[in-house]
Amino acid sequence: MDLRSPVTLADIAEAAHVSVGTVSRVLNGRKGSIKISQATISRVMEAAQRLGYQPNPFATALRTQRTGVLGAILRDMGDPFLSKLARALQQAAHEQGFELLLGHADYDAQTAQRQLTLMLNRWFDGLLLLGNLPDDATLLMMVQQSRTPCVAVASGAKTTVPLVALDEERGALLGLEYLFHLGHRRLAFVGTIEHAGVSERLATFRHFVKDRGLEWHEGYEQCCAARTPGDATERLRQLLARPRPPTAIFCASDALALRAMSVAWQLGFHLPAQLSILGFDDIEQAAESVPPLTTIRQPVSLMAQEAVSMLRDLIDGSANERQEYRRIVKPELIVRASCSSML
Amino acid sequence: MDLRSPVTLADIAEAAHVSVGTVSRVLNGRKGSIKISQATISRVMEAAQRLGYQPNPFATALRTQRTGVLGAILRDMGDPFLSKLARALQQAAHEQGFELLLGHADYDAQTAQRQLTLMLNRWFDGLLLLGNLPDDATLLMMVQQSRTPCVAVASGAKTTVPLVALDEERGALLGLEYLFHLGHRRLAFVGTIEHAGVSERLATFRHFVKDRGLEWHEGYEQCCAARTPGDATERLRQLLARPRPPTAIFCASDALALRAMSVAWQLGFHLPAQLSILGFDDIEQAAESVPPLTTIRQPVSLMAQEAVSMLRDLIDGSANERQEYRRIVKPELIVRASCSSML
Repeated sequence: MDLRSPVTLADIAEAAHVSVGTVSRVLNGRKGSIKISQATISRVMEAAQRLGYQPNPFATALRTQRTGVLGAILRDMGDPFLSKLARALQQAAHEQGFELLLGHADYDAQTAQRQLTLMLNRWFDGLLLLGNLPDDATLLMMVQQSRTPCVAVASGAKTTVPLVALDEERGALLGLEYLFHLGHRRLAFVGTIEHAGVSERLATFRHFVKDRGLEWHEGYEQCCAARTPGDATERLRQLLARPRPPTAIFCASDALALRAMSVAWQLGFHLPAQLSILGFDDIEQAAESVPPLTTIRQPVSLMAQEAVSMLRDLIDGSANERQEYRRIVKPELIVRASCSSML
Repeated sequence: MDLRSPVTLADIAEAAHVSVGTVSRVLNGRKGSIKISQATISRVMEAAQRLGYQPNPFATALRTQRTGVLGAILRDMGDPFLSKLARALQQAAHEQGFELLLGHADYDAQTAQRQLTLMLNRWFDGLLLLGNLPDDATLLMMVQQSRTPCVAVASGAKTTVPLVALDEERGALLGLEYLFHLGHRRLAFVGTIEHAGVSERLATFRHFVKDRGLEWHEGYEQCCAARTPGDATERLRQLLARPRPPTAIFCASDALALRAMSVAWQLGFHLPAQLSILGFDDIEQAAESVPPLTTIRQPVSLMAQEAVSMLRDLIDGSANERQEYRRIVKPELIVRASCSSML
């Protein structure tokens, strides 16, 4: 028997001398109002067994309208925060009885739409969107038109589907107040403004600098282009080569903070004595940098558990997806060794 | 009409006063030996249209046995070489008319088996295995029993399915000879031996050191545990704190080379004047390190194109999966600025 050409209901119907409808009713255990004799049932079951019939998962999905599989689309697999989040979502999905498969937008609107179309095509019980995706508005419209249950995680405040997100303002304030209490009065900001949450972190930074009357130079605020690490490196070089460089850099991601460390070492700064660097996210590499990175942790496991729970409720119909449904989680300051006192 | 409760063949059968089997035969255009009158066909088509019947993709897959979708399982999403490879595979799949979805083994044998089971369950036309996976032997047996077309990429020489892999010995030799010609006579090796290809790189290194009669100390060979970056950091510290440290480190991955740079900077080495560091893979971050990393490039785009072509041939039946089918690609030395001359 070629596994790629499985036994069909028609094969069984022919062998058992009954209709395809009867085979279907017997094998799917859904007789409905139609009477089927025990003799017929036995004949169908025997034929199915003799021919080596195996229920096809597509047929099962067709019947139950459920696959037990969730799909998650990432903006960028190379982003260490998003890959950490995807790993946590996979674990949370498994704990809650789902399997998870990943789609990848690869920073490209067309790719994102192709992957989403595939996932919306009833292959998946529900979808997770990770990070902000290229041309979000079109994707969110596609999701809503399909009425497929969907939850976004760390996708920015403008998302129109149920969302799990960080309290961004609180996260930024935790870091800025820590640097302030260490005695820093010349703070710089470095961030990729296109990434979800970063504009809120920048707004909080600007407000903090003004509110505390800190020393300010225009070059202290550096917004780096996404997907061009060379741009970030060049901006960090310019920032640190200023006549009056900052004494601390608030980086809107750990990835940028690690890059800032490299550039600072190369320019001869001793870390953290001559320059404090603060990250955001708490990616796996943060604890292993030189020096270990002090950062704002996004509680990724909790975010993943919440997102899968919300999605499960939407799939089960116990939550209404049209209602405003946002879960805001709290950040945490993780003190390691990349920031030092100026006092 | 609730999109989550689509019109079934039974609904149409009831409306058109025919059997489910007749509806199926009409809609799928497979009348077989059974005669169906034009009047019946019209009645079924009209009922289908009136009720808003849409062919279900599961039903289509059930009929055609094809989905146009490939699955790829990664060992670890956090590995920058594997995520680069996954991105290239997605692009190659799209160019060759497939969509790609990702599964993630997350370094765990049970997770790998669950994800593979899902992918083998006829959801996918073919599978790609990326990197060596935990408990490979079991997974490969599952793949072969299912007879699902499968190609492995960068999965190590022991893989029993068709494979695209690098000429590892040539790659290692390119790097070692480059360091030798720069005048280095104290070479160290750092690698994660559990990763595919690394044992071949180490064997080539040992042979080279012996063959050229280079200075040797036991600590010059450091095999790091997978998934424990702290172990690599500690081993690099020990290596560089030796009374006679090496003048060059041959790292079996760029990820380790970047870590070696951090540790070396922290210990006060000036790079590359006092220490040359050579990587392997050519990940995206390699060009952006401080200093930019000299490395051995794996031709990831070519590997991806080859793998998808091989898989397509297996799916089409134009290649025989039982024959030995290996495509070995050539590495390239990419000279940047992390290695300097000792002469």
